[in-house]
Amino acid sequence: MISKANIKFIKSLQIKKYRKQEQCFVVEGSKSVLELLASDFEPTMIVGTKEFISELPKAYAAQAIEAGVKDLGDMGEFQTNDSAVAVARMKANKRIDLDANEFALVLDDIRDPGNLGTIIRTADWYGINKIIASEETVDFYSNKVITSTMGSFTRVKIFYTNLEEYLKGTKHRVMGAFLNGVNVHQFDFKGGGYLVIGNESKGISESVEKLVTNRITIPRYGKAESLNAAIANAIICDNIRRSG
Amino acid sequence: MISKANIKFIKSLQIKKYRKQEQCFVVEGSKSVLELLASDFEPTMIVGTKEFISELPKAYAAQAIEAGVKDLGDMGEFQTNDSAVAVARMKANKRIDLDANEFALVLDDIRDPGNLGTIIRTADWYGINKIIASEETVDFYSNKVITSTMGSFTRVKIFYTNLEEYLKGTKHRVMGAFLNGVNVHQFDFKGGGYLVIGNESKGISESVEKLVTNRITIPRYGKAESLNAAIANAIICDNIRRSG
Repeated sequence: MISKANIKFIKSLQIKKYRKQEQCFVVEGSKSVLELLASDFEPTMIVGTKEFISELPKAYAAQAIEAGVKDLGDMGEFQTNDSAVAVARMKANKRIDLDANEFALVLDDIRDPGNLGTIIRTADWYGINKIIASEETVDFYSNKVITSTMGSFTRVKIFYTNLEEYLKGTKHRVMGAFLNGVNVHQFDFKGGGYLVIGNESKGISESVEKLVTNRITIPRYGKAESLNAAIANAIICDNIRRSG
Repeated sequence: MISKANIKFIKSLQIKKYRKQEQCFVVEGSKSVLELLASDFEPTMIVGTKEFISELPKAYAAQAIEAGVKDLGDMGEFQTNDSAVAVARMKANKRIDLDANEFALVLDDIRDPGNLGTIIRTADWYGINKIIASEETVDFYSNKVITSTMGSFTRVKIFYTNLEEYLKGTKHRVMGAFLNGVNVHQFDFKGGGYLVIGNESKGISESVEKLVTNRITIPRYGKAESLNAAIANAIICDNIRRSG
């Protein structure tokens, strides 16, 4: 059975400071843990109910630690988690470059972990696997982000950097949504490029706006003032795949 | 200045039981409160900072109650609220019918308040102002839903009912997203109808699926297993307006 020290260790990883120190993060829930084990992430601890462990491939079952449902709920951030938790090693923050005709998302200060998780999940649905994020964007490895990607964190790579420096001098298009751009229903996305998603309340920052080469607009048919950042991203991704 | 009794009253409305009893709900944040005052909802209490009140039309300023920033934060569910809170009367749960060529959303057991709020905001962006919701769908009047609509709760009407009884015998199309439907990029949305959005984990229920007349599919280009319910709704709404 799991020790109190291990429970405490896993709980401590809900805090960014400890994740950074240990270079580890937590994956909650059986579905996400199974996606982790099938990915190129390196798990350092697997915890689960007797039943969960009994269904694991032997190599993983041998190293897995058994825990009760209550302990599993306590270990993670989400009480709905009642069968498995894992700890895995964070990947290095390596520069990501764009191939010809490829698309990548650029996140200009996304602060809400649920939004980031949803953006990653949607990007994965649309076959976009590269994200460049501002240094102020919420941590990819937070429990809430990992959980809300529904397993897509294993397939989408992220690079945190200074966006102005990163985008300056790029040969690729930099697309961003503004009120006065080209209608996304008419814009020709063919050719790939960067799609900038702005902050939830402030939108795209001035320093990044200067580097946007193609202003696009999601047409509005009703009266809402704006769309949620993850929603805007999804609509543009769908339009990218229609014409891109 | 606001009394302790009023603070307690406003806080109590975070709980569905008390909202039902009082037939009132809370609107948090200056932007949402201003949208409320400009709508056909009836405010029963307006609370704000001295500055917020000074900028209100006279009729509202006269009845508004002043409160400090800390009290305002305590009264609502969200700590970011620091300038205004209002209480308004709930609307009766009245049957909603569809006009010719009109679209409405049908929510089959949406449980997450953030998702419901985002669905309402997105519907408002796309000019869809009618929602039919299953009785198990999260309460429209919860603080989290109202806040995450970003003011769109004033423009979108909702009717909670038994979906099977409601949809049985309708003359309108009932569209629902499944894995084996017509690609939404090809589907001809012209003519209006109901768009069913399924539960976050279980999708569309069997009893509603039987009544779906048009199965549609959001094409997948990557590897995520599914899309978030609010995201799927937004992508379909965008496709509706392209061709509908």
